[in-house]
Amino acid sequence: MPRCPRKEPFPTHQVRRYLEPGPIVLVSSQWQGQQNIMTLGWHTVLEFSPSLVGLMISAGNHSHDMVRKARECVINVPTVALADTVVKIGNCSGSDTDKFATFGLTAQAASDVGAPLVGECHACFECRLFDDALVGRYNFFIFEVVVAHVAPRPAYPRTLHYTGDGVFTRSGGQFERRALFRPQML
Amino acid sequence: MPRCPRKEPFPTHQVRRYLEPGPIVLVSSQWQGQQNIMTLGWHTVLEFSPSLVGLMISAGNHSHDMVRKARECVINVPTVALADTVVKIGNCSGSDTDKFATFGLTAQAASDVGAPLVGECHACFECRLFDDALVGRYNFFIFEVVVAHVAPRPAYPRTLHYTGDGVFTRSGGQFERRALFRPQML
Repeated sequence: MPRCPRKEPFPTHQVRRYLEPGPIVLVSSQWQGQQNIMTLGWHTVLEFSPSLVGLMISAGNHSHDMVRKARECVINVPTVALADTVVKIGNCSGSDTDKFATFGLTAQAASDVGAPLVGECHACFECRLFDDALVGRYNFFIFEVVVAHVAPRPAYPRTLHYTGDGVFTRSGGQFERRALFRPQML
Repeated sequence: MPRCPRKEPFPTHQVRRYLEPGPIVLVSSQWQGQQNIMTLGWHTVLEFSPSLVGLMISAGNHSHDMVRKARECVINVPTVALADTVVKIGNCSGSDTDKFATFGLTAQAASDVGAPLVGECHACFECRLFDDALVGRYNFFIFEVVVAHVAPRPAYPRTLHYTGDGVFTRSGGQFERRALFRPQML
């Protein structure tokens, strides 16, 4: 298990840097004294400011009701060092498992929401429910990122990306094409 | 420019394999005889069957109105071999540029929609608009993938993932953790 990296405040309107590449995330929640974590791969950025992110949290997940009732969560971005833990979190239920204790994860206090940060992750985004219009039909929650915490190094963490069937890809090296962008697109 | 890989039919309920990892995609469209392509990174899988995908297509894009009116599009998955073209497509407008001609891309006929496939891409998913409930508020389109075409090799293509500021990551190698999954989760 990696130690908890020191994180710094990060501008909420720039969280696309960590979410747009499409990593598997851990969604942490708290409701009536219980804390939980789920593994989630179906999410998208929706807006820079307010900083909006859409998450599809299937109704079969214990976290679904917790997040819906608390109207808050934290989106945590793990790296490949946490791969086994990420899979194990996704293959048990918060209905009968205290995931922080079982997997030796560190629940750190958030500043603006009740849900805990997962300390071992590279980035943690505190979120409040912004729009639940599509929760009933598609289990699609639109959250506003209200506070962001990011480890300053590495600049481009090696994240996990799920393809189904137990197979992941890891993010490889970065490259830039700034010279091909119009200035207003950067 | 890579040649057009030969593609095979692919089960629509398994398109998460190519979309859940979060690659940059090219969305192709057709409306009143005009064809267009846009570069897009804000998307998420929403359901296996029907095969639903959500796309945030900003209203500032020429493609927004075309897709909204045609109620169809094709989601194409490029690899790093197309990186320069992907960036150039995202930095000009279909209002004054024929992107297929300008970038030497091959518009292949789709089987079920009017929008063309981008032949040079690794995978092409023909889509029909399924729900426009959030288009007005968030430019969020929910599409159903009705036909999928995928190149059989490589099994895990090297896709592009955007972090903002002109910087991309590429997908690195794959790894599997099947032994850690409950059977019903695979």
